[in-house]
Amino acid sequence: MRYKIVLSYDGSDFCGWQSQPNGESVQNAVETAAAKLFGHKTTVVGSGRTDAGVHALAQTAHFDSDKALPIKNVVGGLNAYLPDSIRVISAEESDSRFDSRKSAKKKTYMYLMYRGDKTPLLNKRALFAGDLDTAAMAAAAKELIGTHDFSTFKAAGSSAKTSMRTVYDATVEERDGFIVFKITANGFLYNMVRIIVAQLIKIGKGEHIDMATLIAARDRNAAKETAPGYGLYLYRVEYD
Amino acid sequence: MRYKIVLSYDGSDFCGWQSQPNGESVQNAVETAAAKLFGHKTTVVGSGRTDAGVHALAQTAHFDSDKALPIKNVVGGLNAYLPDSIRVISAEESDSRFDSRKSAKKKTYMYLMYRGDKTPLLNKRALFAGDLDTAAMAAAAKELIGTHDFSTFKAAGSSAKTSMRTVYDATVEERDGFIVFKITANGFLYNMVRIIVAQLIKIGKGEHIDMATLIAARDRNAAKETAPGYGLYLYRVEYD
Repeated sequence: MRYKIVLSYDGSDFCGWQSQPNGESVQNAVETAAAKLFGHKTTVVGSGRTDAGVHALAQTAHFDSDKALPIKNVVGGLNAYLPDSIRVISAEESDSRFDSRKSAKKKTYMYLMYRGDKTPLLNKRALFAGDLDTAAMAAAAKELIGTHDFSTFKAAGSSAKTSMRTVYDATVEERDGFIVFKITANGFLYNMVRIIVAQLIKIGKGEHIDMATLIAARDRNAAKETAPGYGLYLYRVEYD
Repeated sequence: MRYKIVLSYDGSDFCGWQSQPNGESVQNAVETAAAKLFGHKTTVVGSGRTDAGVHALAQTAHFDSDKALPIKNVVGGLNAYLPDSIRVISAEESDSRFDSRKSAKKKTYMYLMYRGDKTPLLNKRALFAGDLDTAAMAAAAKELIGTHDFSTFKAAGSSAKTSMRTVYDATVEERDGFIVFKITANGFLYNMVRIIVAQLIKIGKGEHIDMATLIAARDRNAAKETAPGYGLYLYRVEYD
């Protein structure tokens, strides 16, 4: 039986989604909880890897078990074994052909920035960015929409076969005291959102950077900076 | 020269305000930063100790140095040496008779709770309390106002000479999705706020507990629970 789960997590204390030799990963924590609940080892496949420090409001994952548990018990049981920094929001039985990674059609990431005074209470949760021209950032973000070769925003180490991606929406808005960047695409290259955010911040600070020119460069040297992981949230994963 | 500083911190990664043999304390982090900035060791005296995991929006402290630095440089310099989890909000030169602890006239603590769904994003920041009757809690909080012997709410290990304290205000309000308890007094006994919060939560969950009777008991056995430290914030310290 295949289970589909939606997870929320504070990435601060993890080395990222994917299990690694050093450091505790979110995947490993969920697999440990699942093994306790179901009584056997199982691989928990996420819709995508989130880096160290990156958070999730709704990461989707799947795993298999021969054991049929009532869905309510899957949510409650996993949460009982998980640390407070990871919560299962929902669970459902899914088609055995469902694959949280391969079946994903759209993903949305959110990046949180704030101005005013730097506060420890937002430590590891949002980027203190100082004053920013959000209108300029919003205009630049719009240029990302469409199907492009996003090589400029691809970090070394990416295993993607192609750098073509379709961005459906990209916005910069002020909300609840935060400057919020949101981007929806059919997929993202390694560090793509964080590299884009670093450029948006430069634009917000008044640098004359043309996003269309950056994209057309298809060269990471045109956009060298990477915004820190702790401002980034996997916001939503959509399936058919 | 005596400097008065106001600090904000995320207490999650600290063993509390006070320096201890094991674990990093907020006090130690500030003293380390001050030693780097002023070039000599100095003791940083806080208005009061906050426990492990407890946060501060505005903790006041003082320290001495023979070195006269422009105030702007004190704020910027300390922040440059401090970890992101501690920020100096303001600094001023103070009278040499000013003592952040002994001169404090009123202190306000805030305790953050929330209902709805438990979220990892509030991990170590607020207590997930489920559904609560905030009107009942507010009514019970009001009973705390006045000058009383608060022995019922004093944890073992308190070195206070007297358990008499004057509570000037105590409120429970819903705000920004949080249930917020705020209490202002001329001083607090060891764990007093957290022990009170544990009782308020029981009242919010429908238990028939009379706060005036609890106070009158003057016995810790009448109020055994202690709410977790991570929901607690030192909100303000007032001086003449």
